[in-house]
Amino acid sequence: MTQNFRLIPDEAFGSKAIVRIRDIDAIVHNYNLFKAKADATGTICAAVLKGDVYGLQIKDVAPALYNVGARYFFIEELGEGIELRELLPFEDIHIYALGGLLHKEEHYFQQYNIVPCLNSLEQLKRWNSYCSEHGPGTAIIHLDTHMNRLGFLDDEVRELSENYDSLTSNINIEFYISHFFDIKGFDPSNCYKQLEVLNEYRSMLPPKPVSFACTDSVILLDNKVFNFDMIRPGIGLVGGAPNADSPISPDAKHTMEVYAKISQIKTVKQGQTIGYGGAYTTKRDIRLALIHIGYKHGYLRLLSEMDANPKEVYMFIAGYRILVVGKISSGSTTVDVTDVPEHILKKFHYAEVIGPNVDIKMLADISGCYDILGALGVVNTRIADYTLEEFDHKKWKAES
Amino acid sequence: MTQNFRLIPDEAFGSKAIVRIRDIDAIVHNYNLFKAKADATGTICAAVLKGDVYGLQIKDVAPALYNVGARYFFIEELGEGIELRELLPFEDIHIYALGGLLHKEEHYFQQYNIVPCLNSLEQLKRWNSYCSEHGPGTAIIHLDTHMNRLGFLDDEVRELSENYDSLTSNINIEFYISHFFDIKGFDPSNCYKQLEVLNEYRSMLPPKPVSFACTDSVILLDNKVFNFDMIRPGIGLVGGAPNADSPISPDAKHTMEVYAKISQIKTVKQGQTIGYGGAYTTKRDIRLALIHIGYKHGYLRLLSEMDANPKEVYMFIAGYRILVVGKISSGSTTVDVTDVPEHILKKFHYAEVIGPNVDIKMLADISGCYDILGALGVVNTRIADYTLEEFDHKKWKAES
Repeated sequence: MTQNFRLIPDEAFGSKAIVRIRDIDAIVHNYNLFKAKADATGTICAAVLKGDVYGLQIKDVAPALYNVGARYFFIEELGEGIELRELLPFEDIHIYALGGLLHKEEHYFQQYNIVPCLNSLEQLKRWNSYCSEHGPGTAIIHLDTHMNRLGFLDDEVRELSENYDSLTSNINIEFYISHFFDIKGFDPSNCYKQLEVLNEYRSMLPPKPVSFACTDSVILLDNKVFNFDMIRPGIGLVGGAPNADSPISPDAKHTMEVYAKISQIKTVKQGQTIGYGGAYTTKRDIRLALIHIGYKHGYLRLLSEMDANPKEVYMFIAGYRILVVGKISSGSTTVDVTDVPEHILKKFHYAEVIGPNVDIKMLADISGCYDILGALGVVNTRIADYTLEEFDHKKWKAES
Repeated sequence: MTQNFRLIPDEAFGSKAIVRIRDIDAIVHNYNLFKAKADATGTICAAVLKGDVYGLQIKDVAPALYNVGARYFFIEELGEGIELRELLPFEDIHIYALGGLLHKEEHYFQQYNIVPCLNSLEQLKRWNSYCSEHGPGTAIIHLDTHMNRLGFLDDEVRELSENYDSLTSNINIEFYISHFFDIKGFDPSNCYKQLEVLNEYRSMLPPKPVSFACTDSVILLDNKVFNFDMIRPGIGLVGGAPNADSPISPDAKHTMEVYAKISQIKTVKQGQTIGYGGAYTTKRDIRLALIHIGYKHGYLRLLSEMDANPKEVYMFIAGYRILVVGKISSGSTTVDVTDVPEHILKKFHYAEVIGPNVDIKMLADISGCYDILGALGVVNTRIADYTLEEFDHKKWKAES
């Protein structure tokens, strides 16, 4: 049941509060799972690396995916695209910016050979106009299949359809993309409805390749219908899934581990309240411990345990689940270690916050989203950060 | 009503997604408000700079506060203390680490002259033992007045009381601190109850100075009773308050402004859903715009607007409030700009996310806490970051 609880040497922390370990081989492994699904339908498998790959860090992930053949990458905003282009300055690398072409960004897109995902007629006109002056450009077009967020919606699709040639006179449109709004996959009919809208749009426009599916639940739904010409896995690469029950494969690996130090174990009597606002009341005499991670480190406050809103979030120490109790503070979290023997607490000076025993999918299910991965993964001087390879090759000093 | 909506030049963004402006003079101004309250009772006014000063950044804040006479600083964890010591390497600067003395940190505390806030007997014993070998040390002691989080609780206070001299044989205890758990100040009796516990503890221990109050609502409650020998303002320095109705003074200033670009304005018909999960339904035909900030930048997902949980969070553009609608995405947020005239949208290419028109206290009231400040303030390569002074002195290129 307990999987490989890692004995982290105290030295791994140095003067930092937290240790993070990022497993880049695992993300490559997960990419290959998606690629197998794509290959089965003759589909390109791209990779979405936005948000610094949900904290896995693009500087390590992008070259690793390149080495196993990935050539099509999506990021969100220009700055991410520039970083990626500098990492992979090769002609066969395609970089698409999902956030679109914002004001005054045109020359950066051209300079760094980043392809804008045009999300509106205004962006299309601006890019076409820029390219008429500075040489022909490339773009993809985002069709908004009633998610009502990014992309060309009904009226704009109609206008594009009626004036396609003049609107794109200086631009090569590579393909169309769209995006599912019911990523949890709770009601598959939502995906089929969006597919209908997409097909209606396509009937109005010149034929082009299509990229639609980006989440593994949708990919699993019906490969033949949803894969089209390119799939775009993102959170699935880092071991996430729309919900805990539908990972792309039972072989999908977790990719990030986070550990934090544990201190000041004390007894709190039954009926006492714990932490800010007195929001949690002890149900028995408990042994309480402090874990030195809090919301300022990215351990989201909405994982707090309150009488009025029980969530049962846990961390792990050796073979034991330790439940979060009370509100999460800026720099610390209180946990119930009543059931953990003293000799374990003496041997292990840290808790697993995310890792093989604390599945990120569980935390995402409880908190509703993967923002915790991005938050905990932000490059942060307060966190001791290693790739698994660095960690494994480190020769830790013997404990003094 | 509209206060100084700032016309940000497009050039301020460069290739970044977001502009952040930090007003260091304003934090100094706020410090002086607290200092006046402290002076009235002959109390030292310290400053809590944890979490990179809630995003205001310690590298700029610490020297500025030093210049107006601040000499006592609290941080949370060792790494923050080291950073602060390197910024202020002066003998008369006192640095206290609220997070305590974790395993294997002893030599860093000594090397950088950081005073640990001892939070448990175990930490006290370890520090005393370390100091017996490496020379006498200093510490403060955190008394847990039934917040049941950090600090010595009943049993440990008793043990400390009974063996004070031997337990502190190699340590000079400078003062005692404690912390209020009802920081919102909704029920002042909670503060008085904690005060009773503190006084009971004090009756058992050798007399020492005391620092108790840290939040401005408590300071306002009764200066003479709660100020003691040192107050420790933290969030109040950056313009926050426990709740929007109780700032330390109507003269308190906001200190951080955040702007994000706006794009792709489109019409969404009444009765459509917007964004992930279809969680928000339009009540009328609306003009929808995309603001290029999302939870990966620290704009917390719990500010989302959903049918089932209306919060009415807003941003600002020129003289207009623009309401968040739908779930916040990783890199973008949808807002309702129906009431904003076209000529305003054409002139201003960005929205105020936090600033003079969008009070951080309002966002904290809605989201429950100031984690948004810390999240948005993280040093982040995707954000164009300026102090107000840098911003004001910048000669922006004329728009091309």
